[in-house]
Parts: sequence; C-alpha cells; structure tokens
Amino acid sequence: MNIKVLQSKLKEGLNIISRASLKSTTLPILKNILIKGENNFLSLLSTDLEIGINWWTLAKVEKDGEITVPFNVLSSFVNLLPNEKVDLILKKETLSVQCEDYKIQINGVNTKEFPIIPKIEEKNSINLSSKSFCEGLSQIIDIPSLSKVKPEISGILLCFTKEGVKIVATDSYRLAEKQINIKNKSSNLSFIIPQKTAREVVNIFKDLDEEMEIIFGDNQILFRANMKEAEHPYIELTSKLIEGEYPDYKSIIPPSFKSQIILDREEFLNKIKAASIFSGRVNEVNLDINTEKEEIVIKSQATDLGDYKAKIKGRAEGDKVNVSFNNRFLLDGLVNIKSSEVVFEISGDSSPGVLKPVGKSDFLYVVMPIKS
Amino acid sequence: MNIKVLQSKLKEGLNIISRASLKSTTLPILKNILIKGENNFLSLLSTDLEIGINWWTLAKVEKDGEITVPFNVLSSFVNLLPNEKVDLILKKETLSVQCEDYKIQINGVNTKEFPIIPKIEEKNSINLSSKSFCEGLSQIIDIPSLSKVKPEISGILLCFTKEGVKIVATDSYRLAEKQINIKNKSSNLSFIIPQKTAREVVNIFKDLDEEMEIIFGDNQILFRANMKEAEHPYIELTSKLIEGEYPDYKSIIPPSFKSQIILDREEFLNKIKAASIFSGRVNEVNLDINTEKEEIVIKSQATDLGDYKAKIKGRAEGDKVNVSFNNRFLLDGLVNIKSSEVVFEISGDSSPGVLKPVGKSDFLYVVMPIKS
Repeated sequence: MNIKVLQSKLKEGLNIISRASLKSTTLPILKNILIKGENNFLSLLSTDLEIGINWWTLAKVEKDGEITVPFNVLSSFVNLLPNEKVDLILKKETLSVQCEDYKIQINGVNTKEFPIIPKIEEKNSINLSSKSFCEGLSQIIDIPSLSKVKPEISGILLCFTKEGVKIVATDSYRLAEKQINIKNKSSNLSFIIPQKTAREVVNIFKDLDEEMEIIFGDNQILFRANMKEAEHPYIELTSKLIEGEYPDYKSIIPPSFKSQIILDREEFLNKIKAASIFSGRVNEVNLDINTEKEEIVIKSQATDLGDYKAKIKGRAEGDKVNVSFNNRFLLDGLVNIKSSEVVFEISGDSSPGVLKPVGKSDFLYVVMPIKS
Repeated sequence: MNIKVLQSKLKEGLNIISRASLKSTTLPILKNILIKGENNFLSLLSTDLEIGINWWTLAKVEKDGEITVPFNVLSSFVNLLPNEKVDLILKKETLSVQCEDYKIQINGVNTKEFPIIPKIEEKNSINLSSKSFCEGLSQIIDIPSLSKVKPEISGILLCFTKEGVKIVATDSYRLAEKQINIKNKSSNLSFIIPQKTAREVVNIFKDLDEEMEIIFGDNQILFRANMKEAEHPYIELTSKLIEGEYPDYKSIIPPSFKSQIILDREEFLNKIKAASIFSGRVNEVNLDINTEKEEIVIKSQATDLGDYKAKIKGRAEGDKVNVSFNNRFLLDGLVNIKSSEVVFEISGDSSPGVLKPVGKSDFLYVVMPIKS
C-alpha cells in the first residue's frame, strides 16, 4: 500500500468512522480500523459488531493494499498534522504515516483478523432528504429507554408508506410520532432500528445537503450517501435491526379531547423547568387548567425545601381540569416542538395529555398523567 | 427583609459566590448561602470553611434582614427568570422570591447557624491590576500537586518585594516563576496560598478592569475589588493561608547553560504533543539537540504500538546534547509561554532544562530530565 492523501480529508474520514470504533473492548481488534487503498479510492472502515461505518475518498493510490491499525493512535497523530499531503506506506504489517517533518510507524494487524460487515441484499430502498430525515429523528431520539424486557420499544420504529415516513418512539410513559414526506413512493414496510444507530445516523448525515438512500434487508438496514464528484458511495452505515413486533401504538393516541389550551411554547417550557426545582423525587408538577379564565396555574412542592407557583395565559376551550405530570416528560415534549406556540389537549385527570405544534401536523407527543 | 433587585444583578452575584458553595457536604448548612439586606445594599455570602466569598450590590432595601437558603434552589430559580425586578421578602424563616408570574417560597435556616468568616486585620496591603495578576496566576496555577507530605508545595507562593510580585509554583519535578510589576512599593512579605484559592481568584477577578487590593493577615489573605459607582466593596474573597516554609526554590534555577536553542513555540508544542501518542507509561520523549545542525530531533516509542520521529529547525549555540523528559511536563511549560518563540537551555543530560519566552524575562519554567 502506498497512498497520498490530504490531511484534512483523512481527518474528515477518521472523524466519521470514529463513531463505530470502540475505546475499550474485550475484543482488541475492534479498537482497530481497516484502511484500504484500491482503484484510486482510499477507504476507512470501523465496526462495533452492531454498526459498521465505511467512508471513501478519491486519493492517489500508487499501490493497492490494506491493513488494520489502532484508531486512537492514527487519529491522535493525524489531528496534530498540518493540512498537507500525508503518505501512508505499508511495509509488511507496519504502516508508516508521514507528513512534512512528522513521522510515525504503527504496528498493524492483518485484515483477516477484522470482522466482516455482512453485505445487504439491495431489494427495497427509498431516497429522501438527509436533512429532514435527521431533523425528524433527532426530535424523538431521546425517548426510548433501554429495556431488556421489551427490546422492541428500546428502538425507534420507521414506517414507510405511500404518504411518507413515520418515525415513532416510546418508553411506555410517553410516545412521539414524527411524519416526513418523501417524493418517490414506497411500499408499506416497517423496521425497528436501535437507538444508537439512530444517533449515529443523525451525527453522520445531518450536515449533508444531498439526498440519502435507505436500503432494507432482512435483518439489516443500510444508510448511504454518494459522492458529489463521482458515482461512488461516500458514506455507508450498516446496522442490525431489532427483531420483534412494535406495539400497536396508534391505540394510545387519544382520538379526541375535552380540554384544549394554546400557549406560548417558550414560556410554558420555562415555567415547567422552574417547577422542577421543587418537583421532588417523582418529578411531579401540577397543572390547573382553567378554560374559563384561559390560563394554567403550575404548581410544585417539596416538603422540606418549599414550593413553586406560576401562571400562564393562553387561548382555551372545553372543560376545566386539574392534572399532574412528570415534569421531565413534559419538558422532553416541549423542547422537541419547533413552533412558537403549542397546543395542549386532554380529556380529564386520568387521560394522557397531547402536545402538538401550532400550524403543523407533522409531530405529536403523548404523555401519561401521574394518577393521584 | 424586603428587597427589590434586578434579576441580572442577582444572577451575577449568585454566579460569583457559587464558587465557595458546596454541592455535597457533611455539614448541610454549607450548601446554603447568606442573603442580607442592609443600608441599601444587598449582599450574598458563601463559604466552604477554607474560602469565603462576599458580594454586594446597590438595591432597593425596603426592610433590612438576613437569612440563609440552599444555594442551588435559589440559583436554579433565578437563572430561569426574565430580566425583571425580583422581590425578596422574608416572613419568619420563609423567603419568598417573586418575579412577574413566577413565585417560589424557600424554607430558610437562621443565620446563627451559618459559619462566620473571620475578619482580617488590615495591616499590610498592596494594589495591583486584577488582569495582570490573574493572567500571571493562571500561567502557573496547574503546577502544584496535592501533597500531604509537603503541604507547602501544594500551594502557590506569592513574594512581594519593592520590585513587584513573584508568583512561584512547583511539584518538585518542575517549577515556574512569574514576575509582575506593581506601582506602589511593598515591604518584603511572602505567603503560600492554596491552589483552590488561586483558581477562584482567577475565576472571579480576571474580567475586572479595575485594580484589586490584596490584604495580608497573620493566617489569612483577602482579595478585594471595590464598586465603580460607590465607595464600597464589590467582591471580597477571604482565604486561609498555608502554614510552613516554602523550599528555597532559587537554588533549583540553573544560573547558566551549556546548550541553547531558540524554536518556534507552536511547532515545538505540536511536535511534543504528537510524541505523546507513543510516549508510553512514563511519558518519555527524547530530544536530540544538535547545535551544529541547529535542530532538535524528537523521538518517542511504545514497544507494542510503534514509534514517532519529528525534526525542528532553530537557532542554536553551545554543546550537542541528548536528553529525555516527561512529555507532559514539557507541554505544561510550553502552553504557558505566550511569546511566538521559546528559548530552551540545558547543561548536559542530567541537568534541568529551562524554558523561557523570547523577548520577555517575566516567566521561567524549569523541568527535571528523566535520567537514563
């Protein structure tokens, strides 16, 4: 192997694949990444056995070859180099990395030792905007909680239909649903992806202006972006899917409401945040929704410390209701709504509350009350 | 107590005194801060028994009074409030804090329970620029290491003389000395302040344009800034001193050298940083100073991982020398030198090395070699 590549390109690639490289592991080879020079492309590959990330760039490959080296050694060194030409030269299993007056020699490990990321059968695929998909994912990404009892809801549901993509997450205390439009039609398909996969997809693809392609296999999913300058993949993220049936989440979404109030989102958010100071161990905050006065009185108290009270004016209709929620769950919904006003709907003190943006119907957040 | 004060002022004060307030402690009262309204001044006071911080502002004090409340409760609430008028009203031992539609009531604790910060006898004092004192302190602040065997060198030495202030720190592997000029003369005095005190002084006083006053007592020291708008203290930080005799550090500073090389600081720093990738458990980096070729060759190696080599050109004189250092100790010196070029001086492979800025003689960093 003999490759010449610009430091900034190499740094970019290392940064992208870093997300599937492990710092500590019982399988030391997973601390390594695979470097490969072939047909004028330099590629970097990392895997943690759940996710594999592959990155390519055009480079001056004077001699093909491949080796694995510890990620943190190569990456720490490359980060310190000036943005000049870097020579990657492999002699036996020692990789020499040289740039101007800096030179390291890294003891590599043969690529035979490196786990293979299984190829996906490219049967079904859709194309969509990287940006809107990642924005949608990030609105619900924090909701699942790691559950060994119900592994299905520890992941995120992707439902593809003719109308678009629905992204759904729940931890059984609250549920969020996000709708994204796509141009090309899709057959009806749904998959559960691990939360970690969703996080890495957001991290890697969110800043790409291009479209991304999602390819579905039997128990794997592949997210791909292509190069602008060549008909060639630029980044591929392959992930295992979570097996099992996602619960029938639609039955949880209340079809109607008895009380509704429209509030300034920022003010509601801030006054719920302040309630957390006294919300105690159960994080309980009480909402007294007075539809006649068109206001909510927010209260919390902690026996030893003191108590809190705040009022918000809104536009209300329907019945008066007094209901308590987990203050943190309300916050998680409010921070992920992007409109300046928010609709809060409920049907009595033991029914779930629903938060929605005003002026858009692409996001829905359902939260269970604390029963008194 | 009945005080009206702007949210931004209250937030500023809470931020300043936060540095001596403890989050967890076996003495619960230390989680509290003391709030006092007296003669049109609102004051906040916190202490961790080692350091006490007192902050004042002009405020509308309609009724004098004082109480202690948990710092984190008051601070979390005030941070969420809009920048409007805040009412602090004390009824018995309950402090009500109200701003617009937000209101909390905090259960306070009587100020009799709060530790008293002893008054310092204002015998000796000097005035100097807050900015240059804090900049000087921060250049050497990280050097001391907590030592129970030698408590003196766990602190920072302040030596006041007619010429100015010398700030000195060591951990017995390296030593730094910083010189600051002052206008008014001082008698010869020296004190050892705890590293934590030095950190808090830097944090609190570094952004003040004004002069600060340092007052020395028998076993305490007081750092004070006054208000711009009134003849009144604005911030006072009182700290215990470390008792004992500081070692005779001047004997460690080599009076002359056999080899000298002048290097670009940034390049030297970066090439030493890169050496750390392979510097192993002892952080050893080898410098081969070739005064004939006027260059240093930097080398490091870790048996299993690989090795590193880099070269730097400079302007050299004197003998050739090959010497090894702890890579981290060299870095700590280099990052705290502010000039674009750095002088490196040494007298053989078992003598300490000296780093100095080029063009200034106000800073000196001595580092012990690793003997082979």
